[in-house]
Amino acid sequence: MGLLIEDDNDGGEVLIPPANFSMVEDGVYRSGFPQLENFGFLSTLNLKSIIYLCAEPYPEENLRSLQSNNIKLFQFGIQGKTDPPTPMPKDTVLSALRVLVDVRNHPILIHCKQGKHRTGCLVGCLRKVQNWCLSSVLEEYQKCAGLKWRQRDLAFIEEFDVHGLRQCLYSIIYQYNGYGLKRRKLLYQEENLVVQEQHKPQATKGW
Amino acid sequence: MGLLIEDDNDGGEVLIPPANFSMVEDGVYRSGFPQLENFGFLSTLNLKSIIYLCAEPYPEENLRSLQSNNIKLFQFGIQGKTDPPTPMPKDTVLSALRVLVDVRNHPILIHCKQGKHRTGCLVGCLRKVQNWCLSSVLEEYQKCAGLKWRQRDLAFIEEFDVHGLRQCLYSIIYQYNGYGLKRRKLLYQEENLVVQEQHKPQATKGW
Repeated sequence: MGLLIEDDNDGGEVLIPPANFSMVEDGVYRSGFPQLENFGFLSTLNLKSIIYLCAEPYPEENLRSLQSNNIKLFQFGIQGKTDPPTPMPKDTVLSALRVLVDVRNHPILIHCKQGKHRTGCLVGCLRKVQNWCLSSVLEEYQKCAGLKWRQRDLAFIEEFDVHGLRQCLYSIIYQYNGYGLKRRKLLYQEENLVVQEQHKPQATKGW
Repeated sequence: MGLLIEDDNDGGEVLIPPANFSMVEDGVYRSGFPQLENFGFLSTLNLKSIIYLCAEPYPEENLRSLQSNNIKLFQFGIQGKTDPPTPMPKDTVLSALRVLVDVRNHPILIHCKQGKHRTGCLVGCLRKVQNWCLSSVLEEYQKCAGLKWRQRDLAFIEEFDVHGLRQCLYSIIYQYNGYGLKRRKLLYQEENLVVQEQHKPQATKGW
């Protein structure tokens, strides 16, 4: 009989996920800002990359953890709460989305500060790429934003155009075989790979 | 570059997840009651089993969909809202948990009516098996229950003893290899498999 525990936790250590943590897709996670106490939990995810959506520099402690686990950091600086509100920058979200849908970066964690607005917008755009109906996309956004959901985020997600992204993408094929084993194949389309490289942000890598 | 769409949806069909849908773990999903309009989305999950937590018979339409997709139904009849409230039955939740942690039943969808209380309690117990700290378990319960969260469900999850379950379990090993490919190995422990079979509920199978 199988027990859903991670391979590096044999039942002894209590795991503390980051605030507002949840799983988005196979190999895609979202959360609020990871604290020191969450590093043990995060190590069970075997992350390859992190998408960080705040403008502030990544804390030294977190950088060290990424370094020791060989995790790439993709930072896309988006302003948090400002007065008057700063509109969510479409181009930046599109760039983040390009990193997010590239399975070579998975397993990947998306986070901002609370995991509600910036992260919620990016995940919402991903769901549109995945062809989810809009009401389900907005329901998911609201579930993770709780009482702090913002009308302007919903409008941003609704208006976000994913057709441009679709045109430069090919597809992941999910294959399910046998006992819960799930496989993805990444199919390349050479021309599009070139397009992607041009838009790739600078990754902090290989310290 | 990889696009996170399912293999049987090439971008044309709009997918409608069931209400309150979310991913719990690799191969474990939760939601409210699936309706006809959700069947297209559910087919992309390649489900092997469903855990259904209500006392009411499964609708004929849903049964037909399970049959044509060769999906096993595990029903554990738990009462919904009653006056006075019926306590969540520990033994039934434990039996459902046994089915849930057995990766041979994955990919699996857990659902009740709203995906809030009965489903939330079962997922909460799973998180305890996974050694999540209690505050994170309760945060997840509340996120999916929204304004309808119940104090007695939180108390149930807190009090639920997973040690009995742990003793008859071995482990899943997650292995992450290369481009987003994620593998699980199921390690068997023969004695425990026997224990599990004795507790296995009647599954609706192979119509």
